[in-house]
Amino acid sequence: MNPPLPSVLLENAVNEFAKLPGIGKKTALRLVLYLLRQDGMTVDGFASAILTLKQEVKYCSSCHNISDSVICNLCADQSRDSSLVCVVENIKDVMAIENTVQFKGKYHVLGGIISPIDGIGPSDLEIASLIERVKSAGVKEVIMALSATMEGDTTNFYIYRKLEPFNIKISIIARGVAIGNELEYTDEVTLGRSILNRMPFDESYKLNQK
Amino acid sequence: MNPPLPSVLLENAVNEFAKLPGIGKKTALRLVLYLLRQDGMTVDGFASAILTLKQEVKYCSSCHNISDSVICNLCADQSRDSSLVCVVENIKDVMAIENTVQFKGKYHVLGGIISPIDGIGPSDLEIASLIERVKSAGVKEVIMALSATMEGDTTNFYIYRKLEPFNIKISIIARGVAIGNELEYTDEVTLGRSILNRMPFDESYKLNQK
Repeated sequence: MNPPLPSVLLENAVNEFAKLPGIGKKTALRLVLYLLRQDGMTVDGFASAILTLKQEVKYCSSCHNISDSVICNLCADQSRDSSLVCVVENIKDVMAIENTVQFKGKYHVLGGIISPIDGIGPSDLEIASLIERVKSAGVKEVIMALSATMEGDTTNFYIYRKLEPFNIKISIIARGVAIGNELEYTDEVTLGRSILNRMPFDESYKLNQK
Repeated sequence: MNPPLPSVLLENAVNEFAKLPGIGKKTALRLVLYLLRQDGMTVDGFASAILTLKQEVKYCSSCHNISDSVICNLCADQSRDSSLVCVVENIKDVMAIENTVQFKGKYHVLGGIISPIDGIGPSDLEIASLIERVKSAGVKEVIMALSATMEGDTTNFYIYRKLEPFNIKISIIARGVAIGNELEYTDEVTLGRSILNRMPFDESYKLNQK
């Protein structure tokens, strides 16, 4: 439909941008033309920030989150409870949970979830290091905080079976009706689960008071 | 609101992406994390496509469109009418007009439009070269095909005044009710203009037959 671009160089740059998730050819062209209008310094800065990140990125040796140092700020924070480990998929989930200001333990970043369709198996994730961590350090509770999807559930169950032999508490974040949502518009699976997972009224009331 | 990112390198890359038009911090983080998951070769390819484009980009010496050679394919095409020059803002407009398959003349790419608010004056655009082109080559008609905005109109008028002394036809693309649009929902300025710029019915009918 679209005529070919008049320059191979332009086409290459557009194709590279169009590989990014959520970026189509049209948006890619807009972004490339924007960069082309900027001065050389700006474009160099853009490219080198990405290259530097890729070449020099480090991961925390304890939680495996992206970090500039061997131990990330969250793991180095003495005021956080090391006996409580929250298992998440990636850095965005760490940020989402940190945003709630409700969690004062440590994290363990898997770097993905088990997804046979994408060719991601347990060995591609930081599961072995989680088991090591539970074995060696004084971990008392592991909180599974993965997405409420089939892949998330598969990963939850796999890790649960691996951690079962150890004498620790394994919990999972609550699934139920989202705060502010009306029952009428809540899907039946979620609503059904929220009834099965009901909790004592006074406990819930106390949480609301916090 | 958001907690700071755990890595300066990551933050730099996200900030660079967030400078692009239409890309917010959240999308920037998603794109950067995507690139971080790719192998080194892919990331190098991405960065170098942009750097190479910026360093080696050429512009057609005749129409000033982005091109890999001194004369672009459209200008080199002998079957196109050199006496008909369509003035556009940028390469995206060339592509949009080429897509219509209704124009068989040549283009002149201004590289922007006059916009005092963005500090873009006539000397920042390829206007002098347009005048040179009209002076030297056998141009018989210049078609103004800029956006129907205030900036577009300012640029139209500026170029019109500059080309007036030359003995050529200066035309402007039609503005009116878009094909497929209902009168009821057409804004009054456009509708008013379409009445003032009405054309003989048989001429319009002939165009529809094409």
